[in-house]
Amino acid sequence: MAEILNGTKLAKKINNNTAKEVKKLSKKPNLVAIQVGKNEESSLYIWTKAGKASEIGIRFKHLILKENTSLKKMLKVIKELNEDNDVDGIMVQLPLPKHIDPKIIAEAIIPSKDVDAFHPLNKGLLDMGSANLIPPTALGVIELLKEYKIDLQGKYIVILGTGEISGKPLAKLFINEKCTVTMCNKNTEDIYAFTKNADILISAVGQKDLITNKDIKKDAVVINIGITKDLDGLHGDVNYEKVWNKASYITPTTGGTGPMTVAILLRNTLECAKAKNGTKK
Amino acid sequence: MAEILNGTKLAKKINNNTAKEVKKLSKKPNLVAIQVGKNEESSLYIWTKAGKASEIGIRFKHLILKENTSLKKMLKVIKELNEDNDVDGIMVQLPLPKHIDPKIIAEAIIPSKDVDAFHPLNKGLLDMGSANLIPPTALGVIELLKEYKIDLQGKYIVILGTGEISGKPLAKLFINEKCTVTMCNKNTEDIYAFTKNADILISAVGQKDLITNKDIKKDAVVINIGITKDLDGLHGDVNYEKVWNKASYITPTTGGTGPMTVAILLRNTLECAKAKNGTKK
Repeated sequence: MAEILNGTKLAKKINNNTAKEVKKLSKKPNLVAIQVGKNEESSLYIWTKAGKASEIGIRFKHLILKENTSLKKMLKVIKELNEDNDVDGIMVQLPLPKHIDPKIIAEAIIPSKDVDAFHPLNKGLLDMGSANLIPPTALGVIELLKEYKIDLQGKYIVILGTGEISGKPLAKLFINEKCTVTMCNKNTEDIYAFTKNADILISAVGQKDLITNKDIKKDAVVINIGITKDLDGLHGDVNYEKVWNKASYITPTTGGTGPMTVAILLRNTLECAKAKNGTKK
Repeated sequence: MAEILNGTKLAKKINNNTAKEVKKLSKKPNLVAIQVGKNEESSLYIWTKAGKASEIGIRFKHLILKENTSLKKMLKVIKELNEDNDVDGIMVQLPLPKHIDPKIIAEAIIPSKDVDAFHPLNKGLLDMGSANLIPPTALGVIELLKEYKIDLQGKYIVILGTGEISGKPLAKLFINEKCTVTMCNKNTEDIYAFTKNADILISAVGQKDLITNKDIKKDAVVINIGITKDLDGLHGDVNYEKVWNKASYITPTTGGTGPMTVAILLRNTLECAKAKNGTKK
């Protein structure tokens, strides 16, 4: 039976530390989340972040722009936030409407306020192992593994999904930890040829029951990031019940990587505020 | 019998195009190569680049700093080159002496003159598929594969070596081409478990005879980047004679990726000059 990688518990610990650090500051850090349109899930994600921010003592502003907001208008909003000395962190909730290129948005947010670490400069610094800001979901996975003292060096990691939020930054983090890493995408002919050999398997796809007990190695560590929703509720890529008996460690479908993402996003906001005030390089 | 991926031939084609473009410019592009100390191999590499630059019509300055040059002094030299409007490209030949951190140097060269594409901003743009400047060795491999119309989408790529010059940027390029990618390093328990399944195998290690016929899949594409030198001469990671009969395409030990690196470095210099003069965005 697998041990549960309890993201809720570790996130709480991180949030407590962040709250303590926030108390030491003369001014509360200020995070602005931009949402374009009224995607219900986006709203839910932002409300979760807002709720935790409030608990921790981080100011949080939820900026909702109309679905048809032009790129130009959005860049103007971001520029104002970049220049506003009272704003410490800026995040844009994905997905964006089709007429707004997320790459342009990623380059628009000033790297020092880029709490999601999507700016190319922050991506490049992560490559080099010198990043101050690391994408929250990816870093959350690594910190969760380390919390449970799971040794990484030399391990074989298989990552399903090559997105900017988790797949790509996770690959970099694992490579910096001296792991062997395979990245699979939707063009991969047979993902199971890889998943079956993984010491640590990360699934960030968004496909119900993609991974079940026959698809993993005995005693593998299995991390679920991808989530899908249907009438029956929320489902992970990993069929938790089936994999549970074969894995050594496993994240629950909820309470695994999700709370870690929020905790690290808010800690990143704190780091931005501290860097601005010169209390940290 | 494998078909040879003739880097010398493709490099010549690229160099001819670069020379044509250079002729159209009112002022010849200017590349400055910085060498620290008198490492004989570094000198050889730079002379090769200087020779090709001269053929193509690119001005080339070989700046040799003393082995004991301080980081501060070196940063001063780079700053002056950054600010010198007559300089289009700047490259620092690796390896550097131990007291100089290559990461600091990578961040010092202004991204718009960074012909080796080592600056974190250029690394991040490569992640996003939006880079103007791409590390020459890595891009050389991709262009060589494309020249021979080798289909990449969905292929399984195994990369041995996770360095900044070839392994890491190659992984990004292949991921952007929708490949499945495995990156191995010196901590990988059994590289051959991966190499034997690769559709395209890239070796950038620097270990003689690391790859021989038993280590590859029949009809694999095999690319050698790593080179070692001993009293018998130059050796690739790949034992060319033995792999020759089993591979579908193979680079020769010399005349494969080497000339491509130089050709793309010089084309990058041209691109920098054009961008500066506003003839290209």
